[in-house]
Amino acid sequence: MTSTISLPRGFRFAAVKAAIKPSGNADFACAVADSVASAAAMFTSNRVVAAPVIVGRRQLVSSGGLVRVVAVNAGNANCATGEQGIEACQQVTAAAAVQFGCEQTQVFPSSTGIIGVPLPAAKLVAALPAVQVALGDTAEHFMQFARAIMTTDTKPKTAFASIEVDGTQVRIAGVAKGAGMIHPQLVPHATMLVYLFTDAKITPTDLAKLLPASVESSFNRISIDGDTSTNDTVLLLASGASGAAVGADHAEFRSALDQVCLSLARQIIDDGEGVTHVVELQIHGAASDADALRVARAIAHSPLVKTAWAGCDPNWGRLIAAIGYSGAEIDPARIDIWLGAQQICSAGGRAQDFNQQAAHEVMLQREFTIRIELGVGSGRCNFWTTDLTAEYVRINAEYST
Amino acid sequence: MTSTISLPRGFRFAAVKAAIKPSGNADFACAVADSVASAAAMFTSNRVVAAPVIVGRRQLVSSGGLVRVVAVNAGNANCATGEQGIEACQQVTAAAAVQFGCEQTQVFPSSTGIIGVPLPAAKLVAALPAVQVALGDTAEHFMQFARAIMTTDTKPKTAFASIEVDGTQVRIAGVAKGAGMIHPQLVPHATMLVYLFTDAKITPTDLAKLLPASVESSFNRISIDGDTSTNDTVLLLASGASGAAVGADHAEFRSALDQVCLSLARQIIDDGEGVTHVVELQIHGAASDADALRVARAIAHSPLVKTAWAGCDPNWGRLIAAIGYSGAEIDPARIDIWLGAQQICSAGGRAQDFNQQAAHEVMLQREFTIRIELGVGSGRCNFWTTDLTAEYVRINAEYST
Repeated sequence: MTSTISLPRGFRFAAVKAAIKPSGNADFACAVADSVASAAAMFTSNRVVAAPVIVGRRQLVSSGGLVRVVAVNAGNANCATGEQGIEACQQVTAAAAVQFGCEQTQVFPSSTGIIGVPLPAAKLVAALPAVQVALGDTAEHFMQFARAIMTTDTKPKTAFASIEVDGTQVRIAGVAKGAGMIHPQLVPHATMLVYLFTDAKITPTDLAKLLPASVESSFNRISIDGDTSTNDTVLLLASGASGAAVGADHAEFRSALDQVCLSLARQIIDDGEGVTHVVELQIHGAASDADALRVARAIAHSPLVKTAWAGCDPNWGRLIAAIGYSGAEIDPARIDIWLGAQQICSAGGRAQDFNQQAAHEVMLQREFTIRIELGVGSGRCNFWTTDLTAEYVRINAEYST
Repeated sequence: MTSTISLPRGFRFAAVKAAIKPSGNADFACAVADSVASAAAMFTSNRVVAAPVIVGRRQLVSSGGLVRVVAVNAGNANCATGEQGIEACQQVTAAAAVQFGCEQTQVFPSSTGIIGVPLPAAKLVAALPAVQVALGDTAEHFMQFARAIMTTDTKPKTAFASIEVDGTQVRIAGVAKGAGMIHPQLVPHATMLVYLFTDAKITPTDLAKLLPASVESSFNRISIDGDTSTNDTVLLLASGASGAAVGADHAEFRSALDQVCLSLARQIIDDGEGVTHVVELQIHGAASDADALRVARAIAHSPLVKTAWAGCDPNWGRLIAAIGYSGAEIDPARIDIWLGAQQICSAGGRAQDFNQQAAHEVMLQREFTIRIELGVGSGRCNFWTTDLTAEYVRINAEYST
């Protein structure tokens, strides 16, 4: 795969070992822009926020939406660490600014890992010279960045797209980490760790206009277990190195960005802890798009629905119960449900031609769709979620603070 | 135990086999008042409601809050059964009215069991003569009623209280079923199947004033898995047979009713599918009682928190993350958390004298408390919930539509 990736120009990547992850694997990843890049970001809506989220928000405001360095450490979330956590974060950004020759406000920090343990900032500071030596712009460098930010992920997550703007190739590359504790709430901020790089020439203002819609239709439409992390972040950087100018209303660019975000969101959901089924919910005919989303979320968070999926049980009763308590305006007598191509519920009751064996076989596949027609409006929503398995419980019940 | 129970006067109970439960156990339970009783009820807030809930609501309105017969069948929820389900329900109430000599509107129906399968009303109608023969007012008759309404319960659930009013003994007896699919939302209606009987003399209006507060502090404060059933019902009947009049503001009666409801609610939560821990959440210092309840619900529905409990892991990081996304107004730097007597979180960070082994040992007990001080107001709430275990998943993933 690496031989076919063309990265957006204007960025270099590196990952080194800062000895924070107990495994001893590379755990400090940096992206450095050749010259300062435009930036926009969205953060978790959890009111308990990690120090890097507090600092990152401030940095973007202070710098006017400009970023030169992205510094991500894995193994320690620097969350619930009080004032000391803020200071540790600032220690790292200050040192990175010196190392790479930029303003401190142009260094964007992220952390992921254990909560409540002080961040060993000195280890990160000490690793900066090694980062500088390791920087490169090849696909392999990008993949090393992708691996170093992983925690519970079983594989690195990347996505790429490119378009032509006035005869010039413009590229987008995205990298994400996240599996479990995934339920992004991006109104107005939220998500897991996602870094999107493009060599389009876009102002910070336009990036800030572009980002929310792409995030809404991707990262805001996935859920593994309903929990929202304290560290969720999506950062979008534009180096301008392609020379091609793109505005917020550039349809093809929006579409490519959507595609990269959706690919990463699907990879995150596919890598959920203990996941054996990935389910796409297609909600149609709701009173509004907001209601369609309510229905999707109620289903995605219902332990009874998700355990039925784990057991490959085409149980539509639990589905309509979840629809019923979603808070969406519904007419129970108008609900139709399809499992793959099999209709299992019709007018709020068991479908006349309900074929239990055929419906069960749809569920033997790792991925399947559930389409729900509510018949009360034109609101709709696509949403992706997973089953709930004994393995998920086992992983999360392991006793290790 | 049966020898010490004194049931409220004015009611008789019976349970027979109507051949609806596949097990062949008794599955049709009736309570018949000697003369028409005052009644009040609360129902599920799920917008998908079973036929008996639709009919039950109408009956109370039509009868002016009077009930002579309670007819409960287990093994079939008569939900998602359309117009046929309503007719089936009415067939049963009409036949019961003839059997026991009362108005059809004075027969209160309930059902619990599988969703989406037509109710075999003829079987219930055919069983009514046997019910009449079996009616009795002893504790054993009451326990048979309690067992016949069980579905996934592992044991019958009853509670009793008595007070003195003007030298006369007034009794309350409660019976409930429910385990799993338990998350009552009683604003303004909701719950699982709960029948409360008293021989106090109370008007329907006063019963309707008394019931909500008792339900709010008990059934509305428990959650096993966040799902809200389509059939939840709490019914309160007063026969008046003691001759002692009680008004809605009778403090001792309110207290006794609260006690019976809380006992039943605790029994329900204790009998949750696959439960190995029952946790009492004591939320203090919230901006409002409503905020305290938000915090409690976020914790009670967090798979990451609940799996940590299953593993006896004193993980406070997951707790504060849940507090953070609850939607309650909080100050992350003011959060204190105690696990039993062990403080595990102080000012939003790891408690200085955090003793992991001692905290772990608290969790080795089946029941423990978690106290959370939010420090932003005086809102508070007590809430009871359970852990999330692999056994829960196993039970609910079993493939049987």
